[in-house]
Amino acid sequence: MLSDTVIAPATPPGYGGVSLVRISGPKSEEIAKSLAKKTKPFKDRVATLSSIYNSRNEKIDDAIITYFKTPSSYTGENVIEISCHGNPIIVDQIITSVCNMGARIAEPGEFTKRAFLNGKLDLVQAESVAAIIKSQSTKAARINHKILSGDLSNKLREIKDSVLSVLAKLEFEFDISENELTQPNLIKNTVNIINNSRLSCGSLIDSYEEGRIVNKGARVVIYGEPNVGKSTLLNALLEKDRAITSETPGTTRDTVDAQIVLGGVPVTLIDTAGLRNSNNTLEAAGVERSRSEIKNADLLINVVTLGEKVKKSAGFGKEITVYNKSDIIDYPKKDGDTINISALMGHGLGELKNLIKNKLIIKNESGSSLVLTTRRQVMAISHCKDSLVAALKHLGNSAPELELVSFELRDAINQIDTLLGKTTADDILNKVFSGFCVGK
Amino acid sequence: MLSDTVIAPATPPGYGGVSLVRISGPKSEEIAKSLAKKTKPFKDRVATLSSIYNSRNEKIDDAIITYFKTPSSYTGENVIEISCHGNPIIVDQIITSVCNMGARIAEPGEFTKRAFLNGKLDLVQAESVAAIIKSQSTKAARINHKILSGDLSNKLREIKDSVLSVLAKLEFEFDISENELTQPNLIKNTVNIINNSRLSCGSLIDSYEEGRIVNKGARVVIYGEPNVGKSTLLNALLEKDRAITSETPGTTRDTVDAQIVLGGVPVTLIDTAGLRNSNNTLEAAGVERSRSEIKNADLLINVVTLGEKVKKSAGFGKEITVYNKSDIIDYPKKDGDTINISALMGHGLGELKNLIKNKLIIKNESGSSLVLTTRRQVMAISHCKDSLVAALKHLGNSAPELELVSFELRDAINQIDTLLGKTTADDILNKVFSGFCVGK
Repeated sequence: MLSDTVIAPATPPGYGGVSLVRISGPKSEEIAKSLAKKTKPFKDRVATLSSIYNSRNEKIDDAIITYFKTPSSYTGENVIEISCHGNPIIVDQIITSVCNMGARIAEPGEFTKRAFLNGKLDLVQAESVAAIIKSQSTKAARINHKILSGDLSNKLREIKDSVLSVLAKLEFEFDISENELTQPNLIKNTVNIINNSRLSCGSLIDSYEEGRIVNKGARVVIYGEPNVGKSTLLNALLEKDRAITSETPGTTRDTVDAQIVLGGVPVTLIDTAGLRNSNNTLEAAGVERSRSEIKNADLLINVVTLGEKVKKSAGFGKEITVYNKSDIIDYPKKDGDTINISALMGHGLGELKNLIKNKLIIKNESGSSLVLTTRRQVMAISHCKDSLVAALKHLGNSAPELELVSFELRDAINQIDTLLGKTTADDILNKVFSGFCVGK
Repeated sequence: MLSDTVIAPATPPGYGGVSLVRISGPKSEEIAKSLAKKTKPFKDRVATLSSIYNSRNEKIDDAIITYFKTPSSYTGENVIEISCHGNPIIVDQIITSVCNMGARIAEPGEFTKRAFLNGKLDLVQAESVAAIIKSQSTKAARINHKILSGDLSNKLREIKDSVLSVLAKLEFEFDISENELTQPNLIKNTVNIINNSRLSCGSLIDSYEEGRIVNKGARVVIYGEPNVGKSTLLNALLEKDRAITSETPGTTRDTVDAQIVLGGVPVTLIDTAGLRNSNNTLEAAGVERSRSEIKNADLLINVVTLGEKVKKSAGFGKEITVYNKSDIIDYPKKDGDTINISALMGHGLGELKNLIKNKLIIKNESGSSLVLTTRRQVMAISHCKDSLVAALKHLGNSAPELELVSFELRDAINQIDTLLGKTTADDILNKVFSGFCVGK
């Protein structure tokens, strides 16, 4: 249990019906008694209406105070929740008064960090709390909830336990054998188990693309020559007039962004200036921006019309080719990553949306799959996999050096332990929690 | 008790540690059981951690559910509070699910309206809830809390009871007397009591200026000729570089607004373009705006320097005259509403702030006084006072017609009843609650 007591607003800032302020730490209950001028102890988890006062005995507000007793609170410590009128001035007065009574303002993520330090959550679960709060689609929220409920942690522990069981047998072998292996099939079984763990790591790493796109969103860039109907396509996908369109080539200069959710994935659609060489400085600057967006895209939509050649994509993203103006141009049928549409008339838009979803690997909109969601997770699992691969390499030798295998397996286990926060340096902890909002 | 069940987010929208969703009405508990897949009843006021699910049995979130049983809840009805992760997507899912279970989304202010309809608050107290949430200074919050706690309502009831006691005696007189008054001193006592009530109404009406300025804030307009240092004074009062200043007359064209709190009053300081005739269209437009701000000011600060005559104020607001540049001009001593300062060097700014506070009738920064805060209150009390004055007029006649006095007194009582919400038309109710945020 940490020795100091912290306070922060738990609800978003602003005016509303209610704001919630949270206090955690050993002094919580004592502070709540002073605020409410009570002498009797608060009952665990019982919401109590009370006037609250500052140190000059002036009333701040009428509020509902709820006490969550250690250890079954969010942080594992004594927690007080104060539900007051939703006004920043009142919230400020409460925080100032509580700080005068010996608490300090919590750092971003400090409540969840305390929950982690008090063993209520592992570090992977703690990360998912920030991800849940930032989720921009139901799918993202579900994926992050699965992690909070421990599914990813269990999977990681499963991998770790397999590796541990192998490691134990190998180390037993060091201790007792001199020349011959005492356990028959030891090498073969070890290779099998490590290989399985390697495969599990591999599919977790592969899942990151989905996890990343679902959480951070995908950038889908519409590009092509001038006047092929890029802005009209943007408006059609959005079902509103976002970008100015006209029959004049070069109407769009600056890039135009807009948000939609497609199959549970938050998508930023970006309409760009038509790609052509221009002496006009303004237009040239627009083309420059288009090229930079193309480079950073997760998916490109190349819009073309008959008579124009498909430009080779300048970026690394996946690509869909859209033949536009099918209402006035008679195209041959298309399949695969190519599609005929009329953005103006709305023909083929449903198919295009499905194609975009498929390209963004959105197989399962309900978010029931287990995926990695943070860079830290991918790094650790990749490192873990590398160590398992190195161990397999040693085991492939005719007379494998078991000490080297053992060294790699320990390294693999360490990676998982660090990921779960069993052995985590302070700077990693600070990095994980600095991404949180204050009050969580 | 109203028959339908309503739901709304109670906390401001946005991302944060926690969001609170509130359900009120007869179905609240049943809905909470479905959400949490519970069969056992919720305990009154006990915060319970539970996973919550949508109608497709998909988990939405882990949340804290608290049940407030009728009648001791905010609305007086069965209320469920759900404290979930602070994410708009999760809040939306909860609201959608609850609406599928038979609730509807609450109108703005509907929770407080229900509290009023269920007799938990009178209408004056209900109004103060919105005012507390909108308060922009501790002083405003305190003034509004006094009203919520019933101080203004008690004062109003006191006036009503005095008038009622007089009315009862007058009506007794109709019933039994034929020619002569049976109660000696009846007229004299009636005049005394009604006169006291009239005085009480008068001081309440006078208090509205303070209540209005504390709640809505005051507009303080800085005006004067070009290059007298108006923008420098704005920056000095704000203690930051808000407006561009230069030695060129006519630097400020558009008006520049900035917010400060002075003695508990939220003040909008407005810097205007220097007043002079100009052929420059842009500058003339600026001068036009200055004149319009001057007209709407609660307080004017006329900035002058030696050699220039004080312009006569064009507005109706109170006025302070400031002789600026006292660091380079040697002014005679000033008093009253006139003051020497150097905005550039910071001389005299403290005194100027005090002068502004005094002019804005900020006698008591702690907000302990009882004031009217809404137009509805002033209108009702003014009408009530008018009826009392009319009654006094009738009583001043040599043979007062008691029926006419009685008629006026009934009218005065009606005004107070309407104000407290005892007899209130639906359209008035709707007007009062439409100013609320959703979820309160």
